[in-house]
Amino acid sequence: MASEILATENMKKINIGLTGLGRIGKVHLENLVFRMPQVNVVAVSDVLPDTHGFARDLGIVNIYDHFSTVLQHEEIEAMVICSPTNTHLEYIELSAKAGKHIFCEKPLDMTIEKIQAINQVVQENHVKLQVGFNRRFDRNFARIRKSVESGSIGDPHILKITSRDPAPPPVEYLMGSGGLFLDMTIHDFDMSRFIMGSEVTEVYAYGASLVDPAIGEIGDIDTAIIILKFENGAAATIDNSRKAVYGYDQRVEVFGAKGMANIANHHEDTHEFFDGSGGHRPRLLHFFMDRYTESYYNEMKDFIEAIQENKKVPVDGHDALMATTIALAAKKSMLENRPVKLKELLGG
Amino acid sequence: MASEILATENMKKINIGLTGLGRIGKVHLENLVFRMPQVNVVAVSDVLPDTHGFARDLGIVNIYDHFSTVLQHEEIEAMVICSPTNTHLEYIELSAKAGKHIFCEKPLDMTIEKIQAINQVVQENHVKLQVGFNRRFDRNFARIRKSVESGSIGDPHILKITSRDPAPPPVEYLMGSGGLFLDMTIHDFDMSRFIMGSEVTEVYAYGASLVDPAIGEIGDIDTAIIILKFENGAAATIDNSRKAVYGYDQRVEVFGAKGMANIANHHEDTHEFFDGSGGHRPRLLHFFMDRYTESYYNEMKDFIEAIQENKKVPVDGHDALMATTIALAAKKSMLENRPVKLKELLGG
Amino acid sequence: MASEILATENMKKINIGLTGLGRIGKVHLENLVFRMPQVNVVAVSDVLPDTHGFARDLGIVNIYDHFSTVLQHEEIEAMVICSPTNTHLEYIELSAKAGKHIFCEKPLDMTIEKIQAINQVVQENHVKLQVGFNRRFDRNFARIRKSVESGSIGDPHILKITSRDPAPPPVEYLMGSGGLFLDMTIHDFDMSRFIMGSEVTEVYAYGASLVDPAIGEIGDIDTAIIILKFENGAAATIDNSRKAVYGYDQRVEVFGAKGMANIANHHEDTHEFFDGSGGHRPRLLHFFMDRYTESYYNEMKDFIEAIQENKKVPVDGHDALMATTIALAAKKSMLENRPVKLKELLGG
Amino acid sequence: MASEILATENMKKINIGLTGLGRIGKVHLENLVFRMPQVNVVAVSDVLPDTHGFARDLGIVNIYDHFSTVLQHEEIEAMVICSPTNTHLEYIELSAKAGKHIFCEKPLDMTIEKIQAINQVVQENHVKLQVGFNRRFDRNFARIRKSVESGSIGDPHILKITSRDPAPPPVEYLMGSGGLFLDMTIHDFDMSRFIMGSEVTEVYAYGASLVDPAIGEIGDIDTAIIILKFENGAAATIDNSRKAVYGYDQRVEVFGAKGMANIANHHEDTHEFFDGSGGHRPRLLHFFMDRYTESYYNEMKDFIEAIQENKKVPVDGHDALMATTIALAAKKSMLENRPVKLKELLGG
Repeated sequence: MASEILATENMKKINIGLTGLGRIGKVHLENLVFRMPQVNVVAVSDVLPDTHGFARDLGIVNIYDHFSTVLQHEEIEAMVICSPTNTHLEYIELSAKAGKHIFCEKPLDMTIEKIQAINQVVQENHVKLQVGFNRRFDRNFARIRKSVESGSIGDPHILKITSRDPAPPPVEYLMGSGGLFLDMTIHDFDMSRFIMGSEVTEVYAYGASLVDPAIGEIGDIDTAIIILKFENGAAATIDNSRKAVYGYDQRVEVFGAKGMANIANHHEDTHEFFDGSGGHRPRLLHFFMDRYTESYYNEMKDFIEAIQENKKVPVDGHDALMATTIALAAKKSMLENRPVKLKELLGG
Repeated sequence: MASEILATENMKKINIGLTGLGRIGKVHLENLVFRMPQVNVVAVSDVLPDTHGFARDLGIVNIYDHFSTVLQHEEIEAMVICSPTNTHLEYIELSAKAGKHIFCEKPLDMTIEKIQAINQVVQENHVKLQVGFNRRFDRNFARIRKSVESGSIGDPHILKITSRDPAPPPVEYLMGSGGLFLDMTIHDFDMSRFIMGSEVTEVYAYGASLVDPAIGEIGDIDTAIIILKFENGAAATIDNSRKAVYGYDQRVEVFGAKGMANIANHHEDTHEFFDGSGGHRPRLLHFFMDRYTESYYNEMKDFIEAIQENKKVPVDGHDALMATTIALAAKKSMLENRPVKLKELLGG
Repeated sequence: MASEILATENMKKINIGLTGLGRIGKVHLENLVFRMPQVNVVAVSDVLPDTHGFARDLGIVNIYDHFSTVLQHEEIEAMVICSPTNTHLEYIELSAKAGKHIFCEKPLDMTIEKIQAINQVVQENHVKLQVGFNRRFDRNFARIRKSVESGSIGDPHILKITSRDPAPPPVEYLMGSGGLFLDMTIHDFDMSRFIMGSEVTEVYAYGASLVDPAIGEIGDIDTAIIILKFENGAAATIDNSRKAVYGYDQRVEVFGAKGMANIANHHEDTHEFFDGSGGHRPRLLHFFMDRYTESYYNEMKDFIEAIQENKKVPVDGHDALMATTIALAAKKSMLENRPVKLKELLGG
Repeated sequence: MASEILATENMKKINIGLTGLGRIGKVHLENLVFRMPQVNVVAVSDVLPDTHGFARDLGIVNIYDHFSTVLQHEEIEAMVICSPTNTHLEYIELSAKAGKHIFCEKPLDMTIEKIQAINQVVQENHVKLQVGFNRRFDRNFARIRKSVESGSIGDPHILKITSRDPAPPPVEYLMGSGGLFLDMTIHDFDMSRFIMGSEVTEVYAYGASLVDPAIGEIGDIDTAIIILKFENGAAATIDNSRKAVYGYDQRVEVFGAKGMANIANHHEDTHEFFDGSGGHRPRLLHFFMDRYTESYYNEMKDFIEAIQENKKVPVDGHDALMATTIALAAKKSMLENRPVKLKELLGG
């Protein structure tokens, strides 16, 4: 860290505004303030005043209730949007029209047309839009992508993603979540495209409510297996559960003509205890923020760098569009019990 | 071994006949002769005379060209059939009608009707028929089954089978093999039913020829991902490849309400070498006979025991029927690109 | 982090002074400034002016050349001493006499008498002295300690520590280091006492220069195996090398009447790549600061907490004395090729 | 196995005699009868008549009470000696003088002079003597040896052997065993020389009775840590316990200038079960005959091959002499609490 600070001290700082001081907003704000000497957080907002103390403790001077007040700071070059999903499109549009670059948490929206429209707005205003698919920035997943990109596994044939949460969110949350595919699997859909470097063409999805009947009662599922087919001829299988009692299970494996690469889960520590009944390792990390801590820092660092060096952002509006389209195709596939081509939803 | 011998020395020996001295026939004959004091191999046959020397070296006295000659030994109580697949039904029928118990290598046949018919013959003649799905008898797979059966993983939700061969067989072999699902995945279909303890109701299968164009040219595939749905509401995903350059990849994982269990692959030895580029472990075992050595002994031991104690055999004609039905459903699913219910093939 | 900040915001902040802005001083300063809202860094010093910019960038207002100037800030309650080893005793004495609590990097000194004397001074002035044996605060090592403390491994019988550096420091550094036992193994000596919760009574040490002849030429060693005997009847073996080409190798294993516990090394990431030659994992972490990052934060947090809650510090001057005594005994043992009792050095 | 049989069928068979039908004798006899078509077991003996049934069941025709009767079969070319230790020297001498090659279980004897004398007899009679240090023939240990021999780890610096039994033998057995170093560690002493390919020059040993006071009461120990120094400048550490509640713990690690290699233990199977308390693997194999099954076959196969091809045996009387000498030096070291040079015992 020390050396980074020295290396960047003579570079112009990027002025940032941030909206939304919930769980993920706090993570981003801490990273921006503590770990990114190359930025200056000018102003933040949240409609809930009792979140403001957190920002104040970090030394933020301008703390507002409303997004629009933040936007009035002309010196701001980039907005970090961590407010609820239903505000994303509006805030992106306002930011883009004000000429600000945008980092927005996922999902942008749950409909294809609206994401296409907002991508159009972003493009017309010549600003950058990065979407918060943070898992791409985890060093382990990134390493698997590299195995494909570098050719070390050869042509990829099979991708396997296991993605299971330790426990389901409250049913109230699930009711507004868009369902498992849009809320949870969407990360895996993005991961699939990221690792394969190829577009998905068709989806077949199976889902069931096996964990908690209450989830079935609201018309959602908690268990799923999905097959994706890719333009490059390969295929992926994803399996999801809302409740893995042993922790947050996040694995990926890619198999190709020249080899196979996979990643292991993260346990709480590296010890193993052996007694008369065998060997015992600690639980998996249970909380996504512990598992993916560094990814939040890394994605923000890349966003800032893309602005400073005027580069393409690593995850953009097209990526958001495709992940949502696959999720909607999966939903349709499950309901109609048949494979669904993305073309059916995207036209073309 | 010593203690087993002593334990069984006063028990009446079971007289065995065996036909087919190819690769698997030799394995069974060696196990019967060397490791099973509770049996007496009366006679063997193979139409290729140059296989006879092998049996002679093992001390077998009666060695014939033809199956029927073996069958004339009235003292034989059980036949072990290791001849080519196209002889299975005939030899089972002859054996059953002669009142012999039967151990037959998989597959019995590739059509549902014929398997149903032979199962009828077996039943009418009150003999036992065990089918050579040896993987059930591997201690690691058996341990996973136990995790489900004992309830330690709770209600099973998701089953994952990875089954990849080190290299494809010759195209000539593949031409008569019935295709990947009937030749290779059939083991995984049987494994799925074994581990879940529940019948498969529906199959969705994706297949492609990515390993070798010659395989595609004969209308077969070398890469597959399959989803199975079970009566108990759970689902399975199977992935296959004919060519894993790193060895024989045989893994299974079962996930349920109370936990998850999986098995690791077998490496050539347990050493790891660390140098400036990282840690290096040896290859996986490459040959299925090395990987599953003990399973061949175990399945035969259980067959003999079923005869001695007049118990149900552990894998029977119904299991053979179901594995083949799933394979045929998978083929239909792939060709029509839609999920196929087993009922469509089985009627009822 | 967020929740800690909120939890502590109403607590009186502890005023801190720090001296020494070398590698480890920077780590402590960053942790104090960025991650410890419960402290206020009043002033820092370093005799090398070009280190001052680092402190300035972190927002430190009072930056001096000399330790004594820092000490003149009466509001300071605790001093963090990260200056060169030959200044430790003087700075501890000055701090203690000024009534400041002290966190001092290891080693305090390389002679038993001087450490005994300074411990006396600290005690007479009723201040706390914590010594920077950071590895105790690594969650993996701490977990092993817990296995012993909780009784889960039963009475401990055998402790094994493997501690190997990725590459030797420059010979110039080694010349003033006191030799392998005082410079490198001292961490392992402290770890031994920490894990066993028992005092060492006798040492037998073997050392050789196998890595680099230049190290042998200055009379030092680069390879060692040591046996420690403990008051509780158990024994430990430690092995050291200055050069493990595969990275920073830091393992510990403790074996007892009821079981065994050990910890694994940290690789750069969790992926494994399989090809025709086997499985390949990434290198071990190479740099001690990457391996032990969290331990530096944890030890400082515990120091601050000990002050706030007027508790005993977790590693004190007695621990420093014992680690140094064992190191000196090891040196004597190696030179005289005989086991050496600690009593010979400590008297009593 | 099949192919080996065919490959050797035209080779002259080696006529074997065997004495001692205890645990290890039975293992060797089964391997000779069932798995070695290249040998013919002519006659066996055991003074306990109730062991004879075992040999009879294996088809052995000549079964006697006394060793000397076996020796009268002139056609016998090699004797396999599995009788109690106190008969070894006599039987070796008789066999050698009768011109028979000899495979003898370890230990030859517990005194240096007698082993030297018997080696002289063997040499004068121009027969081969192989000693049953079976662990060298385990593929995992052999792989570690290869890492050193091939130069892949570079010059070896540190060797670490962990060797712990699941449970102590009865005290009655221990009373005649010669003590831990001669009875148990002797395998590790041989392993050290085997892996390093260099002679041991000096030993320092620590021992204690921590497992069972009854062991201490007969003057033996159950826990030990030993340091060995080698001619090549490297050193080894060995740790032993008579009771590892988690199973038979057999590991080795060798560290050198270019890398490190180690081997893992063998668990009962490869499954891991994950629940809310973490990951759980099965116990280690508990019984040495399960762990080292293949090594018994391999050592005998090499012995037969050495005869057939008139090659040097892989482990000979010199190896037996050195292992015993190291064990005696370790005993002396422990009793006198000082490092002991092998020269002190061997003279020269």
